[in-house]
Amino acid sequence: MTAQEFVLDPRLAAETVVLGELGLCRVLLVDDARFPWLILVPRRAGLVEIIDLAAGDLVRLIEEIATASGVLEAATSPHKLNVAALGNVVRQLHVHIVARFENDATWPNPVWGGGERQPYAPVARAEFAGKLRAGFGFG
Amino acid sequence: MTAQEFVLDPRLAAETVVLGELGLCRVLLVDDARFPWLILVPRRAGLVEIIDLAAGDLVRLIEEIATASGVLEAATSPHKLNVAALGNVVRQLHVHIVARFENDATWPNPVWGGGERQPYAPVARAEFAGKLRAGFGFG
Repeated sequence: MTAQEFVLDPRLAAETVVLGELGLCRVLLVDDARFPWLILVPRRAGLVEIIDLAAGDLVRLIEEIATASGVLEAATSPHKLNVAALGNVVRQLHVHIVARFENDATWPNPVWGGGERQPYAPVARAEFAGKLRAGFGFG
Repeated sequence: MTAQEFVLDPRLAAETVVLGELGLCRVLLVDDARFPWLILVPRRAGLVEIIDLAAGDLVRLIEEIATASGVLEAATSPHKLNVAALGNVVRQLHVHIVARFENDATWPNPVWGGGERQPYAPVARAEFAGKLRAGFGFG
């Protein structure tokens, strides 16, 4: 392993399932049954801020945000999508894409910092992950 | 006024100062002395989600997010930037760019839904707006 190799932050890995890989980003499903919630992580070492991305990767990121938003919207028909790069806890650059509903656990507040994560039942998680993988066209 | 004309949501207008205009977005300073906080609003009518943007505007948006992030970072030297398009309260598409510090009012939680906005003193607001306008190169 060199200093330039991408390694997913273990805190992100611990709370998510890998759905697949887009051109720039690894696509994760957050294991929280309260919210349909994706995370995109650019596979580049050492990134913290969006402005750390090279120009071409910046365009790839917004295109992949749009792709993931479309897949999540088609799969869940939310009232609103929330898209955010925060990183106050885990500094490795990652982008949240969350499907929000007016009756969800924290509406209209953000999902971060509001209550405990509730892991999916294994069957439900596998079914939802499968539906999303199909939406992305992941093998 | 036609149905296609951009009009800034009055709730955004009420809590912000206009700094200027980039190619796609109006740039606003949120009048909240707790956080150095910009909002970018694409000047297109009827947008709600990032995926509502045409392909060219999508690229413009991420480029302007990068520009605004750089200006805010240079002006405030934050510990972290938070970038987010939420829209749970105001549905008109807008992107928050917030400079965060480990001793700020809501760290490490998000700024949204955490306490009351605290308007700047007028002189401080004018000084900070002037510094930011210079950073953007706004006349």
